[in-house]
Amino acid sequence: MGEAEGLVKHVLLARFKDETPQDEIDQLIKGYANLVNLVEPLKSFHWGGDVSIESLHQGFTHVFESTFESTEGIAEYIAHPAHVEFSNLFLPKLDKVLVIDYKPTTVQI
Amino acid sequence: MGEAEGLVKHVLLARFKDETPQDEIDQLIKGYANLVNLVEPLKSFHWGGDVSIESLHQGFTHVFESTFESTEGIAEYIAHPAHVEFSNLFLPKLDKVLVIDYKPTTVQI
Repeated sequence: MGEAEGLVKHVLLARFKDETPQDEIDQLIKGYANLVNLVEPLKSFHWGGDVSIESLHQGFTHVFESTFESTEGIAEYIAHPAHVEFSNLFLPKLDKVLVIDYKPTTVQI
Repeated sequence: MGEAEGLVKHVLLARFKDETPQDEIDQLIKGYANLVNLVEPLKSFHWGGDVSIESLHQGFTHVFESTFESTEGIAEYIAHPAHVEFSNLFLPKLDKVLVIDYKPTTVQI
């Protein structure tokens, strides 16, 4: 099982509070994406709303996927003032949050 | 906010039962990866064990990320006999499972 490129994915699942207006959600997503410009170890950012066809998503409505070159980079990101400032805006708008980091690995069959 | 390439990610978070032997977990991961060879709409597969440095992963131990070209492809995958057969081996070994699909989108700042 070969490990791909040493990248680390930081996946955040979120459920926004029902009363959060869509334009506020849009602004928060822009703020999240803008962290790529502010935090050096954060290399790329993608997000998407839930489009599940099964019912196994446990109420999460959004996926945010950030890519780093190392777990040390994630530690630096978490402690970075721009991330702390953003988190203080973002987290109060969430009903649920789950964060998991993993190193994407392929399997040679 | 531009949508990237029309791809759909199918993310499965799992926690294996504590008593599941490591070699059985390894075999199940190989079986999961092998679905790429058996189910046409499944375009790529990556997995990784939890390496989180925060404590927000709610006990999930593994991330499995499959990529499809459409949500219809995910529906075809879910109904495919090879996936059904694999799921019947895989799911009984899990304490927890969460599945969410999303279309990875970038944000132009």
